[in-house]
Amino acid sequence: MTTFDCSPEAARSALSLFEEPPGDATTAADRYATVVWCHLTEPGDSVAHRVVTARGAAAALRAMVEDAPLPELTERERTDARKRWLPRLSARDVADALRVASARGVSLVTARDATWPTQLDDLDVHAPLCLWVRGDAAALTRLRPSVALVGARAASSYGDHVAMELAADLAGGGIPVVSGGAYGIDGAAHRAALAVGGLTIALLAGGAERAYPAGHTRLIDDVAATGAVLSEVPCGSAPTKWRFLQRNRLIAAVADATVVVEAGWRSGSLNTAGHAAALCRQLGAVPGPITSATSAGTHRLLREFGAACITSAQDVREMLGFTAGAAVPDDGRRATDAATRVHDALSSRTWRAATDVARRAGLAVEDTEALLGLLQLEGAATRSAEGWRTAVRTN
Amino acid sequence: MTTFDCSPEAARSALSLFEEPPGDATTAADRYATVVWCHLTEPGDSVAHRVVTARGAAAALRAMVEDAPLPELTERERTDARKRWLPRLSARDVADALRVASARGVSLVTARDATWPTQLDDLDVHAPLCLWVRGDAAALTRLRPSVALVGARAASSYGDHVAMELAADLAGGGIPVVSGGAYGIDGAAHRAALAVGGLTIALLAGGAERAYPAGHTRLIDDVAATGAVLSEVPCGSAPTKWRFLQRNRLIAAVADATVVVEAGWRSGSLNTAGHAAALCRQLGAVPGPITSATSAGTHRLLREFGAACITSAQDVREMLGFTAGAAVPDDGRRATDAATRVHDALSSRTWRAATDVARRAGLAVEDTEALLGLLQLEGAATRSAEGWRTAVRTN
Repeated sequence: MTTFDCSPEAARSALSLFEEPPGDATTAADRYATVVWCHLTEPGDSVAHRVVTARGAAAALRAMVEDAPLPELTERERTDARKRWLPRLSARDVADALRVASARGVSLVTARDATWPTQLDDLDVHAPLCLWVRGDAAALTRLRPSVALVGARAASSYGDHVAMELAADLAGGGIPVVSGGAYGIDGAAHRAALAVGGLTIALLAGGAERAYPAGHTRLIDDVAATGAVLSEVPCGSAPTKWRFLQRNRLIAAVADATVVVEAGWRSGSLNTAGHAAALCRQLGAVPGPITSATSAGTHRLLREFGAACITSAQDVREMLGFTAGAAVPDDGRRATDAATRVHDALSSRTWRAATDVARRAGLAVEDTEALLGLLQLEGAATRSAEGWRTAVRTN
Repeated sequence: MTTFDCSPEAARSALSLFEEPPGDATTAADRYATVVWCHLTEPGDSVAHRVVTARGAAAALRAMVEDAPLPELTERERTDARKRWLPRLSARDVADALRVASARGVSLVTARDATWPTQLDDLDVHAPLCLWVRGDAAALTRLRPSVALVGARAASSYGDHVAMELAADLAGGGIPVVSGGAYGIDGAAHRAALAVGGLTIALLAGGAERAYPAGHTRLIDDVAATGAVLSEVPCGSAPTKWRFLQRNRLIAAVADATVVVEAGWRSGSLNTAGHAAALCRQLGAVPGPITSATSAGTHRLLREFGAACITSAQDVREMLGFTAGAAVPDDGRRATDAATRVHDALSSRTWRAATDVARRAGLAVEDTEALLGLLQLEGAATRSAEGWRTAVRTN
């Protein structure tokens, strides 16, 4: 039989490697057990989420370790899950990860903490069990509203430019920019948000203590210094492909809107977009030249997924529900149909009698005379003793 | 009292300037009267359309000239309309236009002719009374389906390129390309359609006998030589702004779909797009860089008017209802979630036991072994006595 010490004492002892253990014994046990669950499971493990939510992390862990019944699972689910989880059960691995977290200034935020971003609960059983935060955990409470700007790693200079313009405008205007810390669009978005002194958040697929990609170490440090670098996997975890795909769901869930700036036909950012759509978050895509492979994915989002066409930061703000200035009305035109015809019938060289203008315009003379008067008031027509002609614009 | 000879004899005599007059006296009278109406009215005159449709062109003309009652109009409509129409009533103007038409090989197509494009009747009372056709009138019967490719006169090289690619692909594949003969996008579309030996149709705002712009004389001649150049206004009519706006409704009505390739924020092609939408024709817009002023109008169509995002000729064919090859299914992914995790857990350098792989993947050992077998079959994993690792791809 498997044994694992999840007593309040063991919890306090393990947590002391990492942070001041909470005074309340129950809280310490649950907090520690959450960390353990986070080691046992891969991101998005809905079975673990159900057990932990149903009975609390500590009780769930104890029951699972002791092979006790878990009524919220079918017997098959329970057996299968234990086969996944138990081989990873190691107090030493947990202790190692907590030591690294402590050393690198990574803190823990669970669903019981005040700084927990409750919008993640929209992920339901796929919500993360906890978040590891390098930087300011209080930043997590400032993400409503926020926008995720994501896209191709191999971005074009157009994509980089647009990502920077959008991020600088949005972050500079107080809307935090969430992204994934990658090369290309992600990096451009973080960098521009930092440059204007805005809030930006990076969600990593591997442990929060380590920059990925390594070439972004300095950038990710800067994000942590002013905002936060987040991960749902414990310190020391490698950024596997699976974790990237799961990390994408967190980006989509944390932000109110996801905008894909540039993406190839099969870009990973389309996966983020898919999560955003599934979560009923706003989804936008920036168009680009149809001759550019790096816009094929954003066009796909426009065509097949009903993404909003984003051409400016203002478009993003509108998508977030900030009302724009009154739209320019564009159809005063009907009222001026006849005026257009009268103006068409004028010459810039020859004076024409109103009757001649009327015939050319195909309008009655009275109407034509009235409209000529209006055109004169607008500065579009000139009158003389010989008749009418178009006014020569002096500007 | 106004007099105007619209007897069958006058009709035959006038038409003889232009074409072999029809044998049937009624037909000759109606045909001539249609030509006269076309001189009296500006494009889109719904009052004229109602009278002509209600009683036939000849009877309507006679009643109008003789100041007889026109029960399909209110008295006010009748009075106002006569004030517009009568000043233009001139048998000599009509004769002059018919002579020009004859000299320039321009023929007449009315709603009674077999070549009349009946899709124009969707314009209802705003349908043209007739069409003047330079080129092959039979081409008018080959426009279902067809696509209108329109856009900015001041197109960018990107816009020109895209217009040519789309037009060549569509016209080359048997879908006629309709456009307006202007500089920029229109010209590129006509030119590419001609280059691949496809059918292309130009709809002009002025008389069909004269190329507008003059710089496109050669191009418009080529369109007439292989397809047709159309106008609803008589030969000798100038292309006024009003007639441009009205010409746009014909482009939208003739084609099954209108695609705006490039357009500034207030481009005239947005007017064509508006007509297409109002007529429930398919509407598409080609995206471009958001940094390009010549794509601001197409992005507006995507954002505000629900235009389809067009990235290829194939997209246009789909819009026209040609079913594409079966779309590439994109969500086999769910089934391979676990395989991704197993593959993530392999090293390219170190052999790992299946139990180790299972623990790293967070999966049960049996499942992991089955998935390793699949990955081996796919050539993604290699097995040895020491365990498993990722296969080194040789291609």
